[in-house]
Amino acid sequence: MSINKVGIEIPQEIQGYRKDFKPYAGAFETEPTAVTKTRRIRSSKPGGSKIIENLEEAIKRSGLKDGMTISFHHHLRNGDFVLNKVMDVIAGMGIKDLTVAASSLTKAHEPLLGHIKNGVVSGLETSGLRGLIAEEMSRNAIMDKPIIFRSHGARARAIESGELSIDVAFLAAPICDTMGNMNGMEGKNAFGAMGYPMADAEYANCVIAVTDNLVPFPLNNIAIPMTNVDFIVEIDEIGDPRKIATGATRITSNPKDLFIAEQAANVLIASGEIKEGYSFQAGSGGPSLAVCKFLREYMEENKITGSFSSGGIVKVAVDFLEDGLFKSLLDVQTFDAAAAESMRKNPNHVEMSASMYANPHNRSCVAHQLDVMILSATEIDTNFNINSLTASTGVIMGAIGGAQDTAAGAGLTLVVAPSMRGRLPIVMDRVTNVVTPGDTIDVLVTERGVCVNPRRTDLIEKFTGAGIVLKDINELKEEVEALTGKPAKNEYTDKIVGVIEYRDGTVIDVIRQIKTKK
Amino acid sequence: MSINKVGIEIPQEIQGYRKDFKPYAGAFETEPTAVTKTRRIRSSKPGGSKIIENLEEAIKRSGLKDGMTISFHHHLRNGDFVLNKVMDVIAGMGIKDLTVAASSLTKAHEPLLGHIKNGVVSGLETSGLRGLIAEEMSRNAIMDKPIIFRSHGARARAIESGELSIDVAFLAAPICDTMGNMNGMEGKNAFGAMGYPMADAEYANCVIAVTDNLVPFPLNNIAIPMTNVDFIVEIDEIGDPRKIATGATRITSNPKDLFIAEQAANVLIASGEIKEGYSFQAGSGGPSLAVCKFLREYMEENKITGSFSSGGIVKVAVDFLEDGLFKSLLDVQTFDAAAAESMRKNPNHVEMSASMYANPHNRSCVAHQLDVMILSATEIDTNFNINSLTASTGVIMGAIGGAQDTAAGAGLTLVVAPSMRGRLPIVMDRVTNVVTPGDTIDVLVTERGVCVNPRRTDLIEKFTGAGIVLKDINELKEEVEALTGKPAKNEYTDKIVGVIEYRDGTVIDVIRQIKTKK
Repeated sequence: MSINKVGIEIPQEIQGYRKDFKPYAGAFETEPTAVTKTRRIRSSKPGGSKIIENLEEAIKRSGLKDGMTISFHHHLRNGDFVLNKVMDVIAGMGIKDLTVAASSLTKAHEPLLGHIKNGVVSGLETSGLRGLIAEEMSRNAIMDKPIIFRSHGARARAIESGELSIDVAFLAAPICDTMGNMNGMEGKNAFGAMGYPMADAEYANCVIAVTDNLVPFPLNNIAIPMTNVDFIVEIDEIGDPRKIATGATRITSNPKDLFIAEQAANVLIASGEIKEGYSFQAGSGGPSLAVCKFLREYMEENKITGSFSSGGIVKVAVDFLEDGLFKSLLDVQTFDAAAAESMRKNPNHVEMSASMYANPHNRSCVAHQLDVMILSATEIDTNFNINSLTASTGVIMGAIGGAQDTAAGAGLTLVVAPSMRGRLPIVMDRVTNVVTPGDTIDVLVTERGVCVNPRRTDLIEKFTGAGIVLKDINELKEEVEALTGKPAKNEYTDKIVGVIEYRDGTVIDVIRQIKTKK
Repeated sequence: MSINKVGIEIPQEIQGYRKDFKPYAGAFETEPTAVTKTRRIRSSKPGGSKIIENLEEAIKRSGLKDGMTISFHHHLRNGDFVLNKVMDVIAGMGIKDLTVAASSLTKAHEPLLGHIKNGVVSGLETSGLRGLIAEEMSRNAIMDKPIIFRSHGARARAIESGELSIDVAFLAAPICDTMGNMNGMEGKNAFGAMGYPMADAEYANCVIAVTDNLVPFPLNNIAIPMTNVDFIVEIDEIGDPRKIATGATRITSNPKDLFIAEQAANVLIASGEIKEGYSFQAGSGGPSLAVCKFLREYMEENKITGSFSSGGIVKVAVDFLEDGLFKSLLDVQTFDAAAAESMRKNPNHVEMSASMYANPHNRSCVAHQLDVMILSATEIDTNFNINSLTASTGVIMGAIGGAQDTAAGAGLTLVVAPSMRGRLPIVMDRVTNVVTPGDTIDVLVTERGVCVNPRRTDLIEKFTGAGIVLKDINELKEEVEALTGKPAKNEYTDKIVGVIEYRDGTVIDVIRQIKTKK
């Protein structure tokens, strides 16, 4: 056992997890020591075709065997057909004991549960997980190996360093030419930016493109080039276009959320960060995106033009770009049809890889250039640690996303959250699991007040000067607990069902199996 | 000694050259066995700056030491200031025994000669070399190590496999943002596509951007991303814009060249390759580019639309694209201002890396998708072997360029050349040095007749059917030699001053030091 930097006991060894891990030691304390992963060099010949008649044949040719790691990306979100189709074929081929490394997993991927139960899949690595698989893993530990949770930046880092070594990568391509050049923004199942699987394509030993829109070579708009693609399989439908755009990206009309958002905007303005040339990212959903609405008014009134807005891009950000309020959008994942259309048409809407977005172990990432980041949280504790991955019950039901990356990178990271949800306190002594460390969080804005991380004395001074009433986060917690009651402590078994990695590959927390009440 | 596939004696060992080389065995006979090169992983932090006050400081921080390898690219062609400035600084720092691996070397780089003579530079790797350095190496062997000549595709291959391991890469950037995102198409010294140093940026242990046009982050049009850039140095001028566009890219007005070009077009038409959706590349200069003029007439008359034209892109190709005669231009190097402008504006003018262009050891390259390639040659022999690197005197004075790559890749490779130049025969028994093997050449068109490689019986049949009079290449040689006389044999010392690698890394020929006449 050792105690990591956020005060969590981390075992020396975690069954089913790599031996050489280190506990989290602070946001920028653990330096990389590795070199980039190698991969086998292959050749091509004139006249060679990559088009394979079906998935089974492509998988055969990939050399996929028991115990290997395969990868997927989640840009098709709830509309994804590719992961399930591939897994069904693999299951039919009798291949077992695979690790599925997805950029994230959505509701669409629940059929994976069957493949886990029958031993086809014995490991998961992902940014997030919800629903049945999460529930079963949390309560019944249906896999021996813990699920490895990584941020979007960390996934690219782990692929580049070989910590996550992918044998076969499956790329869902809304358009793909006959040699494998592809992008995510054309075709009936267009989803926009294709930032997540770029690392997979560069480092996986075999790359299989799965497309429902095969076009003649050459495709002119190339997100992932043919130089990295081994095989191409055409299928009827890679997804359901009605489910690709998520509903979570509209600005809330909930009055409490809007109130929090307006407070947050006032705090940001008082911080002095909302100035000419500033950069900005807002997480999707809840009050987070609504902050944009209020910032916009301030920017227009004061004729402020921002530099860039980054991250998962939604229509709100596209409107900023089109109205000249920001000069660039840097996009790793496009959340709605308006944004996908924008990326196709507007040269200032720039596609980027997950590594460029948020990998701490390359020569620069966008997350480190951010002035302001707005995050949502399911829980926040009095050390400003954030949980966005597990419910208060201990059940896995969320994602890391880019939270760790942007919180560490941004000059000012502000969390917007209601102080309670129903009878559940959001502000608490200790979050159920730490995902994003408090040292990288600066401000919390709730409907019951604004709390500043004590280490940001500069902000406390500025806010006080601007007449913003601040509240100690311990006081806020007491106030909330007086209304909700102190939450019951979860009881866990010793079994570790999830490892929450920090973006640098260290372990920030572990998720244990929930003890079944007798 | 062993005799390679083109009948050339290759020593078991070549002083100053890697030990584990293989002789050329045929265009697609030698399969890659390596894995991709690793490089050390570094981290970045928020607020970090890459801008270094001058070249000397950046070179210090790069860790450059005696005996290392540095790289440059030649997109600024005869207008390049960067290589010379960097070399002067390095010389001033007292660093010695460096290998300079440039994508090519031009007239602008003659000052390198001084650095070779004083021991700063002890090795060269390049696609081409002309002028004083070439002369001095050919006659006086001014370096112990032979110059390694590689095609554009082979250079990317060698970098990816680590055969060419770059310690510090210098990237000349016409525009670069403060984090290192750059492109070649904006700024007073814009040159267009930045295809050559893309591999350097991905695999070099340290990457230094040198720019005269530093702009705020983020640059929206990114050819090489900041994720690969360590340091940025701003200098006054990276080049002389008047010398960046080469003169070699205009269509000839020489009547003999035009006659050859027209014959070549007729041969291509008779081959049946000039059909809907075909792809095409023409080398720059001489009669090669002039073929386009005649093909254009045929395409317009017969309403033929091609798929893509690739390679170094010139205005002639841009006109094809704009007039709808081709759907795409795939551009690794842009030869004139009109083409640079086109790449900036036209989304169907696509920038590609040298690896995507022509590397035989990745999952696909454009050269392998070509239907028709038109090459120039300084010499061609009765086995259809081509020399484009040395003069009949044995002096180095040319380049490999993309010749090996496109000849091997294209369905039909046609060489256009006059049968003699002045009193020098172009068609001969044996070329001075073999650069592109005859097995990858299909047709020779001269003003004295058309010769088809005997292995292409299909073409002989087609041409004969179309009424094209063919001539045996041996007959043509006799006819030419009757006019020019048999060229005198060069006398060489045992010293090898150049190694001509084939695109797969095997040795196709060696260049020996010329024996000084007493």
